[in-house]
Amino acid sequence: MTGAGPTWRQFITEDLGADIFALAAKIYPICRSITGNGVRETLREVASHIALQVSEVPTGTQVFDWTIPREWNIRDAYIKNERGERVVDFARSNLHVMSYSVPVRRRLALAELKQHIHTLPDQPDLIPYRTSYYAENWAFCMAHSQFERLQDETYEVVINSSLSDGSLTYGEYLHRGETEDEFLFSAHVCHPSLANDNCSGIALLTHLAKRMAGLETRYSYRFLFAPGTIGAIAWLARNEAKARRIKHGLVMSMVGDAGGPTYKKTRRGNAKIDQAMMNVLRHSGLAPAVIDFSPYGYDERQYCSPGFNLPVGLFQRSKFGSIPEYHTSADNLEFIRPEHLSQSYRLMTETIDAIENDVIYYNTLPKCEPQLGKRGLYGAIGGDKNSAAANMAMLWILNLSDGMHSLLDIAERADLPFAVVRSTAYILAEHGLLSSSPAGVSA
Amino acid sequence: MTGAGPTWRQFITEDLGADIFALAAKIYPICRSITGNGVRETLREVASHIALQVSEVPTGTQVFDWTIPREWNIRDAYIKNERGERVVDFARSNLHVMSYSVPVRRRLALAELKQHIHTLPDQPDLIPYRTSYYAENWAFCMAHSQFERLQDETYEVVINSSLSDGSLTYGEYLHRGETEDEFLFSAHVCHPSLANDNCSGIALLTHLAKRMAGLETRYSYRFLFAPGTIGAIAWLARNEAKARRIKHGLVMSMVGDAGGPTYKKTRRGNAKIDQAMMNVLRHSGLAPAVIDFSPYGYDERQYCSPGFNLPVGLFQRSKFGSIPEYHTSADNLEFIRPEHLSQSYRLMTETIDAIENDVIYYNTLPKCEPQLGKRGLYGAIGGDKNSAAANMAMLWILNLSDGMHSLLDIAERADLPFAVVRSTAYILAEHGLLSSSPAGVSA
Amino acid sequence: MTGAGPTWRQFITEDLGADIFALAAKIYPICRSITGNGVRETLREVASHIALQVSEVPTGTQVFDWTIPREWNIRDAYIKNERGERVVDFARSNLHVMSYSVPVRRRLALAELKQHIHTLPDQPDLIPYRTSYYAENWAFCMAHSQFERLQDETYEVVINSSLSDGSLTYGEYLHRGETEDEFLFSAHVCHPSLANDNCSGIALLTHLAKRMAGLETRYSYRFLFAPGTIGAIAWLARNEAKARRIKHGLVMSMVGDAGGPTYKKTRRGNAKIDQAMMNVLRHSGLAPAVIDFSPYGYDERQYCSPGFNLPVGLFQRSKFGSIPEYHTSADNLEFIRPEHLSQSYRLMTETIDAIENDVIYYNTLPKCEPQLGKRGLYGAIGGDKNSAAANMAMLWILNLSDGMHSLLDIAERADLPFAVVRSTAYILAEHGLLSSSPAGVSA
Repeated sequence: MTGAGPTWRQFITEDLGADIFALAAKIYPICRSITGNGVRETLREVASHIALQVSEVPTGTQVFDWTIPREWNIRDAYIKNERGERVVDFARSNLHVMSYSVPVRRRLALAELKQHIHTLPDQPDLIPYRTSYYAENWAFCMAHSQFERLQDETYEVVINSSLSDGSLTYGEYLHRGETEDEFLFSAHVCHPSLANDNCSGIALLTHLAKRMAGLETRYSYRFLFAPGTIGAIAWLARNEAKARRIKHGLVMSMVGDAGGPTYKKTRRGNAKIDQAMMNVLRHSGLAPAVIDFSPYGYDERQYCSPGFNLPVGLFQRSKFGSIPEYHTSADNLEFIRPEHLSQSYRLMTETIDAIENDVIYYNTLPKCEPQLGKRGLYGAIGGDKNSAAANMAMLWILNLSDGMHSLLDIAERADLPFAVVRSTAYILAEHGLLSSSPAGVSA
Repeated sequence: MTGAGPTWRQFITEDLGADIFALAAKIYPICRSITGNGVRETLREVASHIALQVSEVPTGTQVFDWTIPREWNIRDAYIKNERGERVVDFARSNLHVMSYSVPVRRRLALAELKQHIHTLPDQPDLIPYRTSYYAENWAFCMAHSQFERLQDETYEVVINSSLSDGSLTYGEYLHRGETEDEFLFSAHVCHPSLANDNCSGIALLTHLAKRMAGLETRYSYRFLFAPGTIGAIAWLARNEAKARRIKHGLVMSMVGDAGGPTYKKTRRGNAKIDQAMMNVLRHSGLAPAVIDFSPYGYDERQYCSPGFNLPVGLFQRSKFGSIPEYHTSADNLEFIRPEHLSQSYRLMTETIDAIENDVIYYNTLPKCEPQLGKRGLYGAIGGDKNSAAANMAMLWILNLSDGMHSLLDIAERADLPFAVVRSTAYILAEHGLLSSSPAGVSA
Repeated sequence: MTGAGPTWRQFITEDLGADIFALAAKIYPICRSITGNGVRETLREVASHIALQVSEVPTGTQVFDWTIPREWNIRDAYIKNERGERVVDFARSNLHVMSYSVPVRRRLALAELKQHIHTLPDQPDLIPYRTSYYAENWAFCMAHSQFERLQDETYEVVINSSLSDGSLTYGEYLHRGETEDEFLFSAHVCHPSLANDNCSGIALLTHLAKRMAGLETRYSYRFLFAPGTIGAIAWLARNEAKARRIKHGLVMSMVGDAGGPTYKKTRRGNAKIDQAMMNVLRHSGLAPAVIDFSPYGYDERQYCSPGFNLPVGLFQRSKFGSIPEYHTSADNLEFIRPEHLSQSYRLMTETIDAIENDVIYYNTLPKCEPQLGKRGLYGAIGGDKNSAAANMAMLWILNLSDGMHSLLDIAERADLPFAVVRSTAYILAEHGLLSSSPAGVSA
């Protein structure tokens, strides 16, 4: 059985919160977008941990219904008042410039400038995050409180950006397992300084991939770091055959805050990954929320489009759009915490453990119960009201190992953590009470 | 697509409450029963609006297990006291005489008379509605308060009725659509002066049928106005082949009061009409009740008998038998209101709209999402927390248009009003994103 | 139809509480274990009522994974203090000796003695029930309050037991019906003086079997009185072919207390016996609990092992392990009552009635409703709000007798007691409205 050794246990249980946080903090200042050097710089940080394979898709490439856009880069941007003060400065926060803003260098009256400024009147101290990838435009984003204090004067507006032919960049890392069947982990890398959404996801997946080195696994594990929507679409368009190998998948975003955890099911609704995540979350001791698939969210939208319909769910802490920090400058490094990142990591490794070890066993003595006592597997003093509880996992596994229930099915039916069912099954298998093939059939 | 033009929109949305009320008020005074001139007079009023085809089924005709009874007519009836006063007078309310009472002309002591009087002790001011179609008998119905004041004297009792060979009368109107598949609407016409039960249903169906003139529809629509039970049985017995064409159906009664709306499902429980009515009611802004099929109620009993098992449900406002006015003189013209009739009419046209337009589309670009933005179908500024809401219908339709979900299935899964899904689907189809046949297959 | 006669009615409805209690009280003092003379003496009492067939399975016989253990018998046991007083005496309660204690005759200091004493610190006045069938050991059980008063002195400890080659004993009684398909009732006979668990079950089954004499039934009824676990396993190992005939089954224990009733479903979860018991319990006027199968409990563990997967449920009053009296000296003759035993008996006969009479009828007039009135089957005065209630059973049976619903299916769908549906169906069948075969097909 895969991963039963101590290294696997270490993989599942270790606390990597500080490491994950450190990487998230390192990539937080980078100004990312769906193309450009920010993505490349981010992937270089990831590549310092794992052997990342980076792909460039040229501007103009057709990927299904979409076209890879021109590449966007930005060096500087500001709004300067008549006294020469930078009232808004890209150097202070890359959220200040709407992503994909075209270059501009103009003097404007306040009235005209205001048509190019986004604020959040209900959250007056926060800078909103805005993009305009496919409609040529430019804008600044700023705190509404500051916006209201702008004097009626002439402003010098500079966006020193470029929008020109180049390429879209994504990175991927493949951990090869016994089979070509894949478990896909996917994180979007297109957001600028938003710590939870998605520096947290990029950093968690990087360390998850790094920790798999040397582990023998049943499935191959693909870690995809790609710009949201267009990046996932580009990968799917260039890897249609590989996509068919994906047997389980999770999109990862916002995994460092204190909320949730939240799991959004696959479009299929009853995939193995749905079963595994629900078991892990239900027995996590936390207060998880499981929501049905809907076609709005992150890149599961693409993986679960009807032409692919892959079994890919979404794992988060707080649900996207449900918290005031979402897509604002409040999604900063104080909003995420090492202990939450560590917990999210553990929930992922436990889910991997369930997927890896979800096999079907056959009870070798299916007629009546086997005598557990003579094998030292059962409390020896009968009649005790409480002795039975500890034996329930054994009894459930023996009762349901009829070839029609996998260990995950059994864990769900018995309402037991998968890890308990798995470790109990190994003990029963060691005693010859479970076999991996029906009686009389060689494995 | 059928009915997408402005005429269809007018059909669906217009306010016919006043017209429906006026017709209900006009037929309210008529003394109807399961046979006789009251039914004929009622159908003449209906026929003044639509080209009704009226059928007469002679007394003695066998219709399945039943026999068409003798025809009943009544001219006058009263109870006169010793002072010559008519203490009960059919002319004041046709509920005063039990329907199908045989002729009587006698003098009786109070004690004997009382054995022929029905009252409602718990609702002492109301006259009950009673019938005795198949057991020869006679009786008066009166308010219990008046009954208790009857003096111990001799009464002259006259029921000037006739019970003799004749025929049972029903009327039907067929709106022909593109196909012979039918949508049946059925209302019972056998109750005397009960405004809600069922002058309201007769009047609503009449105006619904009238408004369909000139509309091109996919289904043919049959409107049946028949006496309860025996009338529906007679129609089914004489139209077994036609009955097989019924793909959707609704029995209509009590559609003018302030209660409900109530929908009782078909015996099948998961018919298209069940799905359509539940979608329309759930998004009606009202407080609907949906109840499972049971073999007690109106003529859905016959349509849903096991030998037919037609997909026919029951639409009402208040559920039958659940309100104090039911089958009493309180079910009068003050109990129904134009605004409730208008609302019921709208719920019917919206249901027709759902049935007519419930087609299966195929997403023509099923791999990943199509780029809605370049077609002007999507909010151009990304990152806004709220922009997504308006796009949900598009996303759901594209995601589920895989050949296995009709628009009604999608509306139910997405928890959206059918009308929103339908109109959004038309926009997507206009942009070539939906096709009515799978890719590569000509329609 | 089987059992429609008055004898069947008497069988179903009689009050046998006093008789059942008397037998339970008679066998209560016997010291039973999984082997030995206590079981034989108990079965002799059962055999005084029914023609019990008793089997002996020799020590050492292999039964599936188990081996019949040596036979255990006990004559006397006590703990005597230095003053020669028996501070614990088997003669006062056979719970004082842990079942299967090996012989011992020693003098011990209190400290050593304490290692061989079981008490219930949380229930200080009760003697616990303990066993050690498969691990050689000896122990006494006593009230914790008495245990704490033991002086620090030397005690003479005597257990005059024997553990030697012999046999395991079980008894069975077969009531032969029209078919070889069997309904199994199974009670464990291995507990010493525990009145509810399971003198009550033994006594109830004995009288149930006794009362079936002379009744013509569709199924054959097997009543099995066997030691828990090893006894059921022995029977199954020696009767594999017969076990395949079991179409319905109930394990019976703890049927005399005031709790419950409780029904634990079969492993299949949707067997006919599940349906029958749920119908009977839901309409019992009691507050039943129905719980899903789990592999912990009584001998349903063996019958529902995956190699057999028989449709056998568990009937109890209070659920095992859920009450403080469970497996203690408080489970005595005051804990069970004739009225509860009578009620349990009635629930069993009503369940048998449902299983025996659960047939599929065909509505002979499936097109529209038949005219019940002309057959005197329907309230003659229409329009009455309440007249319908009494007719609901007729309407449901006619509507659902389409060859796809048995009477039990109909009772469940209509939420009516099976007995009402059954008796109503007989009336309809007498009037020719139901047939036991489809129209045109001879039975």
